[in-house]
Amino acid sequence: MNVDGKKYRTIWLAKDGDSVEIIDQTKFPYAFEIAKLRTMEDAAHAIRVMQVRGAPLIGATAAYGVALAMRADSSDEGLHNACSVLLQTRPTAVNLHWALDRARKNLIRVEPAYRAAAAFTLANEICDEDIGINMAIGMHGMELIAAISETKRKGEPVNILTHCNAGWLATVDWGTATAPVYMSHEGGIPVHVWVDETRPRNQGAFLTAWELGHHGVPHTVVVDNAGGHLMQHGQVDIVITGTDRTTATGDVCNKIGTYLKALAAKDNDVPFYVALPSPTIDFALSDGVREIPIEERDGSEVSRMTGRTDRGDIQTINIVAEGSDVGNPAFDVTPARLVTGLITERGILEPSRQAIAQAFPERVKMSA
Amino acid sequence: MNVDGKKYRTIWLAKDGDSVEIIDQTKFPYAFEIAKLRTMEDAAHAIRVMQVRGAPLIGATAAYGVALAMRADSSDEGLHNACSVLLQTRPTAVNLHWALDRARKNLIRVEPAYRAAAAFTLANEICDEDIGINMAIGMHGMELIAAISETKRKGEPVNILTHCNAGWLATVDWGTATAPVYMSHEGGIPVHVWVDETRPRNQGAFLTAWELGHHGVPHTVVVDNAGGHLMQHGQVDIVITGTDRTTATGDVCNKIGTYLKALAAKDNDVPFYVALPSPTIDFALSDGVREIPIEERDGSEVSRMTGRTDRGDIQTINIVAEGSDVGNPAFDVTPARLVTGLITERGILEPSRQAIAQAFPERVKMSA
Repeated sequence: MNVDGKKYRTIWLAKDGDSVEIIDQTKFPYAFEIAKLRTMEDAAHAIRVMQVRGAPLIGATAAYGVALAMRADSSDEGLHNACSVLLQTRPTAVNLHWALDRARKNLIRVEPAYRAAAAFTLANEICDEDIGINMAIGMHGMELIAAISETKRKGEPVNILTHCNAGWLATVDWGTATAPVYMSHEGGIPVHVWVDETRPRNQGAFLTAWELGHHGVPHTVVVDNAGGHLMQHGQVDIVITGTDRTTATGDVCNKIGTYLKALAAKDNDVPFYVALPSPTIDFALSDGVREIPIEERDGSEVSRMTGRTDRGDIQTINIVAEGSDVGNPAFDVTPARLVTGLITERGILEPSRQAIAQAFPERVKMSA
Repeated sequence: MNVDGKKYRTIWLAKDGDSVEIIDQTKFPYAFEIAKLRTMEDAAHAIRVMQVRGAPLIGATAAYGVALAMRADSSDEGLHNACSVLLQTRPTAVNLHWALDRARKNLIRVEPAYRAAAAFTLANEICDEDIGINMAIGMHGMELIAAISETKRKGEPVNILTHCNAGWLATVDWGTATAPVYMSHEGGIPVHVWVDETRPRNQGAFLTAWELGHHGVPHTVVVDNAGGHLMQHGQVDIVITGTDRTTATGDVCNKIGTYLKALAAKDNDVPFYVALPSPTIDFALSDGVREIPIEERDGSEVSRMTGRTDRGDIQTINIVAEGSDVGNPAFDVTPARLVTGLITERGILEPSRQAIAQAFPERVKMSA
């Protein structure tokens, strides 16, 4: 998407043809900096320290990491070594696993002399596929927004609430939950986004607000507590969030607090949609609340906060009374009964086992 | 309550008999400091800069402010002047209005020579009344907690979730939502409190956590997003919050985000109680969502945060992407249908017009 009028992806081949460039997301929201990845180790470091984040972008970075490795050592051992180093960077990331598996299986069949070129081609393909999926999600979601827009007075924006960052910064481009927003905005439909701050890591206030702002989409940051009140007063027309993991029955595991917004949407007849690329569907799961283990992260994410002072320096402050215990569950599960629909690359689905299986029959077969 | 084993109220007559002392709440949670109020101006300043906060404590401080004024000038003009200066400190605070009205009406009938003594007596009375109300709330609420405790294994705590600070720091002692907690803890019932951080002003993480910690009540601070997840997994036995304003029908206006917790409680069959001294009931209101105007506060409360660095200095940092709009509604309304019961000084009431009117017939008459 745009950063102050100039088009960007989150990752791309550098002009020198010899390295890969990324937006360094550790600098957000205080600086916009490009980092250069010249070696596989650079790519591994970028994933490890979260210069890149978001499942699709992590997968793409790993694929480029393999390509950079192949330039240095394209032997079978080099390929094996690169995949295993990259896999260690964030062992629980599903897309990382998937991208590396795909790279290994493809490249092992290629003559070592051609592996670097093939690996770069494959990485580019993975990026283009992500963009294709997100654009399809965007087009399907835009129809929902367009339909709401038609019920409004001319020029009055459609108010969309989102939680966390399922934006273009978490993907190669467009984002998932944000794709319908950007497409509507580009298509001339007036939109305004309520951006949940998303404690404790503030991805809404730091990332979603940054990317909407720099692309020029009207938006307002609110604390996570505010959404229910906004819905009670008719100030939210539709909720669109992302998801980290979706069950075969349409339960949605997403950033902590998503469930509370889904409850408020239900209570106020506000449609609640979840945008997802189909790889996030886990066909082995039927009951999200019972079956999905929720990561308990370090309490310091809650008790400490980093930001910029008015003088411009970055400071970390303590924001919980000293000596108090701190809990930090990272995700929650929104049961399918609270979800109006799933916006996928193959259209908008009812959150039910049948509808999901019908849309992705080849996935059901694989998991059977 | 206790601060590290020593009993305190939030306001008291100093040992010199000549001044009033308060806990300076602007220093929380980083320091525990006592401030001395020697003049009416000191009292006005304390209210204005929020060295004291919470409706009951503001009322008590104003009453002491009148007493300090009477020592300097006990004429009718002095009385009138003191009340008008003190009323200006926080013009929308209902208890401030009420305490000053009561002081003026009482003292105007007293000979100027005796007014200072009478005013101190009245201020002490107002404090004791607040404590009496809170203790009654505590005893009624403790019965709920005791009943839950009986369903638990021996030693297993009752898990109480609370939002914002309706604690002893907002009153003269005991608090409202916390009174049942402190009484249970004192009575040997094992309790554990989930403390919502309460963005944007962090009253949970700063004040509730501080007071529970220093009194020795086990507790865990969580972000406001976490409560729904905790309830889905059986980790919350009861929710108890305070309220700023309650309608004649039992709708509850409280800190932003309370409504979301009430929805989650309903969805998970967790009892949701609201503790309130009856003066917060506004018999002129029937529909909280429609009739109660919600204050929109300055966005800087959301976009800036103050805390202590590891070096010990206090810093203010910016925590929203630059240039983004910020919204900051301060309260929301929880409809009576989501409230299990109201814990008042006259017992636990169903949140209905009939039950509330039956418990407080004299108030209904007054407002008729």
